[in-house]
Amino acid sequence: MADRVQVFDTTLRDGEQSPGVRLSMSQKLEIGRMLEDLGVNVIEAGFPISSPGDFESVNTLSKELRNVTVCGLTRAVAKDIECAADALKPAARPRIHTGLGVSNSHLDHKLKMTKEQALEKGVAAVKLARSFVDDVEYFMEDSGRGYLDHPEYLYQVVEAVIGAGATVINMPDTTGYMFPTEYRDFFANVIANVPNSDKATFSCHCHNDLGMATANTLGGVIGGARQVEVTVNGIGERAGNTSLEEVVMALHIRDDLFQVETSIKTEKLLAASRMVANLTGMIVQRNKAVVGANAYAHSSGIHQDGVLKERTTYEIIAPELVGAEKSEIILTARSGRHGLRHRLHELGFNFPEPRFEELYDRFLTLADTKSEVMDDDLRELVEAN
Amino acid sequence: MADRVQVFDTTLRDGEQSPGVRLSMSQKLEIGRMLEDLGVNVIEAGFPISSPGDFESVNTLSKELRNVTVCGLTRAVAKDIECAADALKPAARPRIHTGLGVSNSHLDHKLKMTKEQALEKGVAAVKLARSFVDDVEYFMEDSGRGYLDHPEYLYQVVEAVIGAGATVINMPDTTGYMFPTEYRDFFANVIANVPNSDKATFSCHCHNDLGMATANTLGGVIGGARQVEVTVNGIGERAGNTSLEEVVMALHIRDDLFQVETSIKTEKLLAASRMVANLTGMIVQRNKAVVGANAYAHSSGIHQDGVLKERTTYEIIAPELVGAEKSEIILTARSGRHGLRHRLHELGFNFPEPRFEELYDRFLTLADTKSEVMDDDLRELVEAN
Repeated sequence: MADRVQVFDTTLRDGEQSPGVRLSMSQKLEIGRMLEDLGVNVIEAGFPISSPGDFESVNTLSKELRNVTVCGLTRAVAKDIECAADALKPAARPRIHTGLGVSNSHLDHKLKMTKEQALEKGVAAVKLARSFVDDVEYFMEDSGRGYLDHPEYLYQVVEAVIGAGATVINMPDTTGYMFPTEYRDFFANVIANVPNSDKATFSCHCHNDLGMATANTLGGVIGGARQVEVTVNGIGERAGNTSLEEVVMALHIRDDLFQVETSIKTEKLLAASRMVANLTGMIVQRNKAVVGANAYAHSSGIHQDGVLKERTTYEIIAPELVGAEKSEIILTARSGRHGLRHRLHELGFNFPEPRFEELYDRFLTLADTKSEVMDDDLRELVEAN
Repeated sequence: MADRVQVFDTTLRDGEQSPGVRLSMSQKLEIGRMLEDLGVNVIEAGFPISSPGDFESVNTLSKELRNVTVCGLTRAVAKDIECAADALKPAARPRIHTGLGVSNSHLDHKLKMTKEQALEKGVAAVKLARSFVDDVEYFMEDSGRGYLDHPEYLYQVVEAVIGAGATVINMPDTTGYMFPTEYRDFFANVIANVPNSDKATFSCHCHNDLGMATANTLGGVIGGARQVEVTVNGIGERAGNTSLEEVVMALHIRDDLFQVETSIKTEKLLAASRMVANLTGMIVQRNKAVVGANAYAHSSGIHQDGVLKERTTYEIIAPELVGAEKSEIILTARSGRHGLRHRLHELGFNFPEPRFEELYDRFLTLADTKSEVMDDDLRELVEAN
């Protein structure tokens, strides 16, 4: 049996940090219920100390969602952890997510701490969190760059926080800086070099600043990660987080390569994407992978000809698999004879060769003036023929 | 000196194949001039045989753009190649782009040819194209899957078409199926196993069906590719092509890893993105890497605090580098004391500690009701204080 990868959704925490997004409590609950139904394993519902709304979000989802782990974010600070523990009290499966930075950039400029001070603070945070809940995730902020700075320090931190009781180790590429082979090697090396690494699950958390969040996350899975932190539609601060739908479908379509499974019901992905786009106002571009409006549409003649003969010629995801309608054949100036004949046939028209050729020429002339030739345009062309 | 990677832009060919997009001749010329000015090396301006508009596009850009290679697409068919040669006649640097499929899926279902027949047809096409122009690019359609089917056949095809005069070998991952390490190894193995591979430039052409077009293209560069085929904003059929701006910025920001240069003027990238979005109607989502509206905006307290202390804490691309305004600090329910104090200071207000704490509490309560706290909201808060 294939290994399981846990899907940790942070649409309601890191996703809601998208500038311009503000969800009401009832909208958060609606998204939370959808995520539980979609099959995610962990929902990060907010950062309780940061605002009353975030506290309420974690608290309400803890009460309402009984079949999923509910997680609250904290800094490695006692009052944050106590506040999160309070918000999570009603949860069936509570998790506290705590941690702090490990890169030179974060230690020197933001935390203004030595490595030793930061390590000590992290260990204390894990111990405090474990006094409230059994499931504690530790994040090493900016660990992508931190690993490039000083891998040995990261091994020390991971060993110490697992020793202190952390159950999940999150190694984020906070600034979206890495390449997939680097992120893969990062996980493989940490797991190989930390003596107690078998006592924790390792987690990928990527950002999309250079457009590589999905590939990096999959690199992490190859390196041994068994949790992926994602948001629906990849929303999040700056260029966003890793897209849930892209990672899940890549793991599914390329199971020959990754050899892991998730518990996501893929046929609900498109509905999930639409709900989150509507409630957050974060529009999904038409050329977005997996869930964009054009993802299963074909307009050029060569592609239409290929897809009409055999769908897999140009399409690796069957649209039904994500809950989309069937592949679309769009008639444009780049459509060929095969696409036109197919559509005419669907409309009930059949033409012998010479008449069809004449119609095709007039179709191309019309198509050069419009973005798409619609069925009514075709009927007019046929009638004028 | 670092190696050069040629940027081959196909916004006007593969990009314009996006369902719903239709550019007029004057819009194509406007985009063509912008691309030349941006510093791209090759512009694929259309598929001349496919429609009168495409012929005109290749022909007009050939006349008007003198400092860039202009390329026309063809099938491996004599009438296509003759038509493209005709359209390219006025070009200062004409290139014909021809080829056909190499995967089992394409050979069996679409072409209905044996491997030998397809190889023969490809060689004949290159020879014919070379009778018109000195620069001939050969595409092996669906070569990503084709390589997984039968690498030896691909080596044969590459050797034969280089022997017939092809100057550039395009190895597209037509269906967006590959992972970056696979695409890297594909290039490295073809280059290592084809005796005359030093006589041609190898080119990446990726699609974004699983969200990995950028990472795959960069994988190809690591494997030895020295041309990248891209579109502005990653527009194109289905989930689109590789984004020009993502690849260019990744090569720039991670020059330590890739050790190659491009001739793109990065400070013109945002303007290029906006022009293409406006003219095609293909909206760029706010969380799009490099050019999305949120790419340089920070809303959470932890991030604002970090960026205000030192920009690179959470930002690896300086906004000016792509022609964007400076980093934005957006005040929301997730903003902390540091962000609020910074904005108040910019507005000319300074508060002693106890009054500031009171103001901060009222700020959080207000922020929980809105997506963003604007300057006027702050002024009202201050006046009511």
